[in-house]
Amino acid sequence: MEQKSIEELGEFGLIDHLTNDFVSKHPQTIKGIGDDAAVIKRGDKAVLISTDMLVEGIHFDMMYSPLMHLGYKSVVVSLSDIFAMNAVPTHITMSIALSSKYDTAALTELYQGVKKACDFYNVDLIGGDTTSSLKGMIISVTAYGSADEKDVVYRSGARNGDVLCVTGDLGAAYLGLQILEREKRLYLDNPGVQPELSKHQYAIERQLKPEARRDTIEYFKKNGFKPTSMIDISDGLSSDLMHLCKQSSLGAHIEEGKVPMHDDTQTMAIDFRLDPITCALSGGEDYELLFTIDPKDLDKIRYMPDMAIIGEMNDPKDGVKLHTTGGNIYPLKAQGWNHFEE
Amino acid sequence: MEQKSIEELGEFGLIDHLTNDFVSKHPQTIKGIGDDAAVIKRGDKAVLISTDMLVEGIHFDMMYSPLMHLGYKSVVVSLSDIFAMNAVPTHITMSIALSSKYDTAALTELYQGVKKACDFYNVDLIGGDTTSSLKGMIISVTAYGSADEKDVVYRSGARNGDVLCVTGDLGAAYLGLQILEREKRLYLDNPGVQPELSKHQYAIERQLKPEARRDTIEYFKKNGFKPTSMIDISDGLSSDLMHLCKQSSLGAHIEEGKVPMHDDTQTMAIDFRLDPITCALSGGEDYELLFTIDPKDLDKIRYMPDMAIIGEMNDPKDGVKLHTTGGNIYPLKAQGWNHFEE
Repeated sequence: MEQKSIEELGEFGLIDHLTNDFVSKHPQTIKGIGDDAAVIKRGDKAVLISTDMLVEGIHFDMMYSPLMHLGYKSVVVSLSDIFAMNAVPTHITMSIALSSKYDTAALTELYQGVKKACDFYNVDLIGGDTTSSLKGMIISVTAYGSADEKDVVYRSGARNGDVLCVTGDLGAAYLGLQILEREKRLYLDNPGVQPELSKHQYAIERQLKPEARRDTIEYFKKNGFKPTSMIDISDGLSSDLMHLCKQSSLGAHIEEGKVPMHDDTQTMAIDFRLDPITCALSGGEDYELLFTIDPKDLDKIRYMPDMAIIGEMNDPKDGVKLHTTGGNIYPLKAQGWNHFEE
Repeated sequence: MEQKSIEELGEFGLIDHLTNDFVSKHPQTIKGIGDDAAVIKRGDKAVLISTDMLVEGIHFDMMYSPLMHLGYKSVVVSLSDIFAMNAVPTHITMSIALSSKYDTAALTELYQGVKKACDFYNVDLIGGDTTSSLKGMIISVTAYGSADEKDVVYRSGARNGDVLCVTGDLGAAYLGLQILEREKRLYLDNPGVQPELSKHQYAIERQLKPEARRDTIEYFKKNGFKPTSMIDISDGLSSDLMHLCKQSSLGAHIEEGKVPMHDDTQTMAIDFRLDPITCALSGGEDYELLFTIDPKDLDKIRYMPDMAIIGEMNDPKDGVKLHTTGGNIYPLKAQGWNHFEE
């Protein structure tokens, strides 16, 4: 039997292919592969576990990633997955493989960033592994959290008619990356040129030093409220909405005019001749939370800061759609919706 | 202030340097960095967590590591750390970064090995991350286990006069590696030559497909017995005994004649013009367990299979020593004791 290539399968198809004959042997395994984090029952509590790997040259570029920010971001990325389950992260482990180009000073700076993130998010670093690599740096962070079992929110809990909400604003991290890549090219062509980064501070910070939405989880708790489903937006709104729809066996639609974007994001997108909504839908790395709520709970989040209602969950046969401000309806694609393809 | 280089610090010095200003913020953190696994309190249970990173070209060589064995070994290495805490592993997460030279068939084979290990050791694979690398394969496995808090055994619990015991036999994994490296060189010099591996099956299997000592933990439980301290021998008996002595603030001595070695290991060491005891003391990758017991418990392990009493814990001022069969006493070194240096 011919096997599909990794490119044909894609990351999620590949994971399905590799793990679909693994069967849970422990009744304590409430959720294995397939959500932001795994869930294990321990007494009346749930333990949440999520792991991420960041590879130099793939996920970060040492030409423009300050090591302290990289350490900070490595932690934040993994904590975001725990928040996305409506749980509180408490511990992390961190393994690093690094080539001989790195010295103690570089690692010290990286760990200063890790410590800042651990202090800010109140998590303990409890273990790891440090080893050599043949090329570049590879960072693996695993985050652990806990929650009452009844409070855990999955991707699969959305119901037809639920309201679709998103925190913060989208697309800035992607445009921050475009700016850093542009300035890198300019610098490589002419090392005398000073990079022009100051006026794009917001987007660059969103790329290099993102934060995870602890405040969202705290707001839910304080208001005695629980979303029906939730996911963090690390791959882009389109792609992550697709995951949520697939796991909840539903369709959805988004109103273009309601997708939150920072003013700088809109301006920068146009500078780069990119469609702003495409950046917001497909950019990725925003680490915002996408969640659904029962319409009867709307009053509980009425005064929630930094949150936008962007659409609704629909019947699965309706698919996943974008309603544009111009009155058109387009199907969303996993890699985002692209004006230029129409 | 001048910082020491990574080489000067060594792996453990580096970890100390990077993490010594991290302070635990959660009272549930019973043990952070510094043992085989971290220990977190959850109710009346302890959750154990340990993570390992394996890097192609550093920890394994694709020229002689069958992918299925590599998948199996990646799991075993991380489970061994949980057993070394006298706990039962229940779950793993596994992240992989891989270059474009790997295809779906290769990954499928790797995961077949992971599945075999998960089935054999009764653990659930509950998550991971799959991503690209610029060069080779990097595997990060994190293992989770559980135990009653009172049953957890640390490196730090040994007492003066405790008896030092080790499971299985030592040095074979190191000699297996020497054979694989020799046959690789021969093959590279003359690709027509068939590798001569069959008569060294034991050592090669110890290198490529080691097992973790679940049986040891099961024996302890069945016999209502708990060691005073324990560590897994992944870095070599000398180095791991040093860790145990340091954490227990004690010295120790080992009787050369009591260090268990397989007959093949002895023969092979001599073939390679290596001192057998040096291979056993410094070889590493044996994944056996080194533990200490209160002398009054000796009758509880009298009939324990595949276990040898090799020495005793002493006053810290006595240091860590080897008593040779010839009647000499030598100090052990972290990287093992070397006849050739005398």
